[in-house]
Amino acid sequence: MIIPQWIIEKKRDGLELSRDEINAFIDGYHRETIPDYQMAALAMAIYLKGMSFEETAFLTEAMMATGQKLDTSSLTLPVCDKHSTGGIGDKVSLILGPLAAACGVAVPMISGRGLGITGGTLDKLESIPGYRTDLSEEELVEVVRKTGCCIVGQTSRLAPADKKLYGLRDVTGTVPSIPLITASIMCKKMSEGLQALVLDVKVGRGAFMKDLDQARELARNMVRVGRQMNTPVAALISRMDAPLGRCIGNALEVKESIDFLKGGVEGALWEVTRECTATMITLTHPDTSIEQARTQVDEALHSGRGLEVFREMVRAQQGDPDVCDHPDRLLPQASDIEEIPATSDGWVVDVDADAVGRAVLVLGGGRTRSEENIDHAVGISHLVQIGEHIHSGHPLYHLHSNHSDRAEKAKELLDNAITLGDSAPKSESVIIERL
Amino acid sequence: MIIPQWIIEKKRDGLELSRDEINAFIDGYHRETIPDYQMAALAMAIYLKGMSFEETAFLTEAMMATGQKLDTSSLTLPVCDKHSTGGIGDKVSLILGPLAAACGVAVPMISGRGLGITGGTLDKLESIPGYRTDLSEEELVEVVRKTGCCIVGQTSRLAPADKKLYGLRDVTGTVPSIPLITASIMCKKMSEGLQALVLDVKVGRGAFMKDLDQARELARNMVRVGRQMNTPVAALISRMDAPLGRCIGNALEVKESIDFLKGGVEGALWEVTRECTATMITLTHPDTSIEQARTQVDEALHSGRGLEVFREMVRAQQGDPDVCDHPDRLLPQASDIEEIPATSDGWVVDVDADAVGRAVLVLGGGRTRSEENIDHAVGISHLVQIGEHIHSGHPLYHLHSNHSDRAEKAKELLDNAITLGDSAPKSESVIIERL
Repeated sequence: MIIPQWIIEKKRDGLELSRDEINAFIDGYHRETIPDYQMAALAMAIYLKGMSFEETAFLTEAMMATGQKLDTSSLTLPVCDKHSTGGIGDKVSLILGPLAAACGVAVPMISGRGLGITGGTLDKLESIPGYRTDLSEEELVEVVRKTGCCIVGQTSRLAPADKKLYGLRDVTGTVPSIPLITASIMCKKMSEGLQALVLDVKVGRGAFMKDLDQARELARNMVRVGRQMNTPVAALISRMDAPLGRCIGNALEVKESIDFLKGGVEGALWEVTRECTATMITLTHPDTSIEQARTQVDEALHSGRGLEVFREMVRAQQGDPDVCDHPDRLLPQASDIEEIPATSDGWVVDVDADAVGRAVLVLGGGRTRSEENIDHAVGISHLVQIGEHIHSGHPLYHLHSNHSDRAEKAKELLDNAITLGDSAPKSESVIIERL
Repeated sequence: MIIPQWIIEKKRDGLELSRDEINAFIDGYHRETIPDYQMAALAMAIYLKGMSFEETAFLTEAMMATGQKLDTSSLTLPVCDKHSTGGIGDKVSLILGPLAAACGVAVPMISGRGLGITGGTLDKLESIPGYRTDLSEEELVEVVRKTGCCIVGQTSRLAPADKKLYGLRDVTGTVPSIPLITASIMCKKMSEGLQALVLDVKVGRGAFMKDLDQARELARNMVRVGRQMNTPVAALISRMDAPLGRCIGNALEVKESIDFLKGGVEGALWEVTRECTATMITLTHPDTSIEQARTQVDEALHSGRGLEVFREMVRAQQGDPDVCDHPDRLLPQASDIEEIPATSDGWVVDVDADAVGRAVLVLGGGRTRSEENIDHAVGISHLVQIGEHIHSGHPLYHLHSNHSDRAEKAKELLDNAITLGDSAPKSESVIIERL
């Protein structure tokens, strides 16, 4: 017989929990025989005392076991997904899903909503009129079978204990814990019935993980958990000090993604998207080299096949596919668009992702509590990129707002977000490491 | 505005909480705007990260502020109480209350129930037919005014947040935390409207605190919190490796206490009781020296005035006062009393309080969960004391049981609890330190 408080005490005292103890606790939490307050005490003990790799893997398995695994047996292409730990302007999923599908990978992607300064893929896609993110598991697999890619929200049948635990962690100060993050991400992804997984672990002031050591530990943990479950997992660690791309805000990021799929690629966004997509190809097609895979991604982009998958995915998820041709007309627009000019000449040496994220939150483009509504239209576009030279009077960014007072607050936050220098900054790759 | 999870995160990160933050959290918990799971996460963070002395004092005040303070203004004698951190066979309160009252101290004692291997004063007193422990605050003060002493249970009006928090700590692995124990004890005692307080901090294998450093830290914390609130507090640290006295079990301990008040005093039980009572006298009568106070206690005992106060207290609390004259007839008796003989000659060098406590628990004399009922009649009597020489065949103890299978289990637990040696053990004072 397993007594919940004995398990809490064991972890509190820094001891290692057994597979049976972890299973019993998570199963009890899922079945509501273990109340929230005992789970909260255990989560805090895990936060402060850590978990070994084995415990983290057991926790992942235990959370998976509270739900089902997606049945992808009807898919003929190899099944792979990518997960990002989240950042500012991170619209990689919207572009990578269709590109990977165009290169022969089936992508059943379960995504999340934005919380705090970090945007969410579902919120972005829901800017598209009619787009449904609440598909059933069967509908998800059917859309992947037809179009190659499908992006939906978490369902109640896949790892339900995770959804419950995530909500609890959010209000008990137990979110930024490496074992808890690892198990939360991996139990969801491993429930997708994947053959391989690519992780994009963000590090920097616009990311969850502020320092490289932590990001490495998280990446290593997730890779090991995947391997333990016989699923090849590759991880990239990428910089999230500046926003990814020129647009931040839900509808604005969809428009940028569509422009991107039409060939308008540049900078860090392209570097991360291309590398993650190419890695999905090499993991699922072991005979393909990383160079060959990169070439395939380039071809999928320039031939327009990526855009076509995106269009078909939108159509299959009941969104209006004409958004690909007329994004400005079909996506929600803010009532006020203001150009904010530079007041001096100089090289862009820094753009603070954290400040940009906060500004979009203030505009109404994000949420501080999970039950809040968001404004899809607002945000920032035409943001200058690090390494560009600009002249006084040239716009630093366009501010899209629906409330003048919020716009003022956002501009204040952005006042010092962009740093101009006298000389061009050193060019750095956005990808720091590959695991 | 105070966000509960920010307070949790602050403590999680090892930072010091402010008076306002602690007040807001405890008040919110009391008013149920802060749920159990947030309190549980904070309690675990406090357990693992500790609290400064100032934080502990703020926590004590915040818990007191959720209730009222006992109005002792109608009492003409100085008001003082004693609190023990609990041990095996610890019936000091039952004897000390009446003796202190006989020496001119008013004792409005709020006691607890037993949990785990530690006995509870209320459970013991409830062995007396009719004895009520659920008096109102007004009745409590009235009994003290009439008899000098009254022993009752925690009421809902004094420090209600403590009662709620204690229940939560019990099931979340957050009981043995020095700041949480300090605040829990002190908020209850400081709500009694005392002029002074004596603490008996137990240390040893039959106590909560297993090592002296911890016991010292707890004692120092409580003394400082009391002084902060302008209440003189003295603390004794006393050994709890062997049970206190020859009887362990509820009715058996009442009988031992009555015998004791009739003058049958000996050993460690007398040493602790006499010293705690004398300290209550010196704290409330600054002109009395400790030697004079000890003499007063001896006189109160040998004159029978202590027993008379006990008798009047029992009567005033609706118990049968004849228990003082006929304890064997009026207290519940177990169906089976067995003498367990020694199998060799020797000096008693050790009696394991933890094993004795577990044996009484198994017999049904204690509870493992707070809602369990207990059997007042069962337990152990005639237990040999450290330093006694016994012969083979002489009883080591008498086992009082109402179930033969439980008796067998208890005897097994006691099998190695009593150690006989070839020579007399060194005689040690049960009181280790005075603060």
